[in-house]
Amino acid sequence: MKRWADGFIAVDWGTTNRRAYLIENGGRNAAEFEDGKGILSVRRGEFEGAIAEIREKLGERPMLLAGMVGSNRGWVEAPYVPCPAGSQDLARGLVRIGDDVAIVPGVSMSDGRSDVMRGEEVQLIGAVASGEIPNDCLVCHPGTHNKWVRVIDGRIASFRTVMTGELFSMLKARSILSDLLARRVTSGNAFREGVSRGLAGAGITSELFEVRARFLLGKLDASDGASMVSGLLIGEDVRVGLGESKLSPVVVMGRPELTALYAAALDVAGVESELRDGEGAFIAGACTIVEQIQ
Amino acid sequence: MKRWADGFIAVDWGTTNRRAYLIENGGRNAAEFEDGKGILSVRRGEFEGAIAEIREKLGERPMLLAGMVGSNRGWVEAPYVPCPAGSQDLARGLVRIGDDVAIVPGVSMSDGRSDVMRGEEVQLIGAVASGEIPNDCLVCHPGTHNKWVRVIDGRIASFRTVMTGELFSMLKARSILSDLLARRVTSGNAFREGVSRGLAGAGITSELFEVRARFLLGKLDASDGASMVSGLLIGEDVRVGLGESKLSPVVVMGRPELTALYAAALDVAGVESELRDGEGAFIAGACTIVEQIQ
Repeated sequence: MKRWADGFIAVDWGTTNRRAYLIENGGRNAAEFEDGKGILSVRRGEFEGAIAEIREKLGERPMLLAGMVGSNRGWVEAPYVPCPAGSQDLARGLVRIGDDVAIVPGVSMSDGRSDVMRGEEVQLIGAVASGEIPNDCLVCHPGTHNKWVRVIDGRIASFRTVMTGELFSMLKARSILSDLLARRVTSGNAFREGVSRGLAGAGITSELFEVRARFLLGKLDASDGASMVSGLLIGEDVRVGLGESKLSPVVVMGRPELTALYAAALDVAGVESELRDGEGAFIAGACTIVEQIQ
Repeated sequence: MKRWADGFIAVDWGTTNRRAYLIENGGRNAAEFEDGKGILSVRRGEFEGAIAEIREKLGERPMLLAGMVGSNRGWVEAPYVPCPAGSQDLARGLVRIGDDVAIVPGVSMSDGRSDVMRGEEVQLIGAVASGEIPNDCLVCHPGTHNKWVRVIDGRIASFRTVMTGELFSMLKARSILSDLLARRVTSGNAFREGVSRGLAGAGITSELFEVRARFLLGKLDASDGASMVSGLLIGEDVRVGLGESKLSPVVVMGRPELTALYAAALDVAGVESELRDGEGAFIAGACTIVEQIQ
């Protein structure tokens, strides 16, 4: 059995995909692969096999697993660590399976509002550790479930989830708006008008139908429908995420096609933003946690 | 060809279902049937056959068709009549096919906000004509797309659509909340708490995820999840629908299992309501329109 310090494998194991990295001395990413074996495609009792498969590709190393693999639908549940949570808190909350596998816990909030994250915490902690984001800031981390994260002293102090990505996908797949949503989203005037309406908080379950009505009445070009709906949802998202915060700039971290839209929406709200792709952050976070479990 | 005054067939022809009534002298409902031949199951060029089938069952009578059959996905498009719209406006907007078929137009709003209805207008006009609802009131008409309708002088003066029912169905069918939404909705404490949060306007795309987080953190019983989500959506709906209105009581018209939930939500909002099942309203509305086309 190799020791963690000689190198390890970090896996970002989500619901539908997993991405595995072989990390050698000093955080060097020596090899990686991604496949569609998210937790939903691995049956109970077959996780050992799914683990062995990763080691066949990347070598016999200790493994740090993060994401939905530690949820109640995953392999072994790693209970949530409450906010505020930094790398030490995550390391203390690791669930060990033998001495060569460790599962990273998710992070929870339960004072007043309830909220949970699982997977994003490693990336956030890594972005702080590598200096990609400041020790004190508001992070917007878009995805299926966008997370607005208040970072204080380099720890996740509080956060709020907005299920914008999932709602947009649902509307696109099967709703009265599906036809309109087949088009491409751009951050032009239709998007910005949608953002303004979302920011106004007039109620998206009504505003969404209004987009359809405009189209039926010939007042909206079909090619603008997806942008306006995306703007509405992201505007509502930004309204909720900023709340009473006066922090500026907001750090928007994630895939560039998404962060650009959030930056445009923040601009409509009069708030500056800084974009980060967060690509190296997962590895940096994994290294920060592993340093504490030697 | 029989004249309209001797009796006619009125069809409430929706997206997934149709309901046809044989209406004789003085509005008597002599026979009726319902089937699953909504417009989505009738191909272009096959509407004549679908009409013939109705006449085979109910007799060779003139036919008044209302609902999505007059939409751009239906048989022949009947352009929207703008608000304010009463029975005379609907009669003037009828699209005639030969002299024995008439399609009722939908109603649109396009001053500032855009909105459309198609199908509900006959029921609303009928409820006014039969005295089931007052000439001046605010009507809440829940369904897949809830309509809040301001009736003034017996006409549809303005309205607002909230796609609460469709959103709930989508969340139930395929979302991170699906498991929780398989349970029954009741109007108890969980529902009322959801309503309060919806009324507060804190953003349902975030509040929905909060319900899931509460459940994961053991702070919400699974059996309360569907009620809380329904409460959230209906609370948001009521927030939007009431707007600045001080009208009381609100008339809630529709299927009893839905109207009871909206009445409970209005109660949380401190607004009185009166419930109407609206069952006879469609026939009353059809008669009111037909009286003007002899």
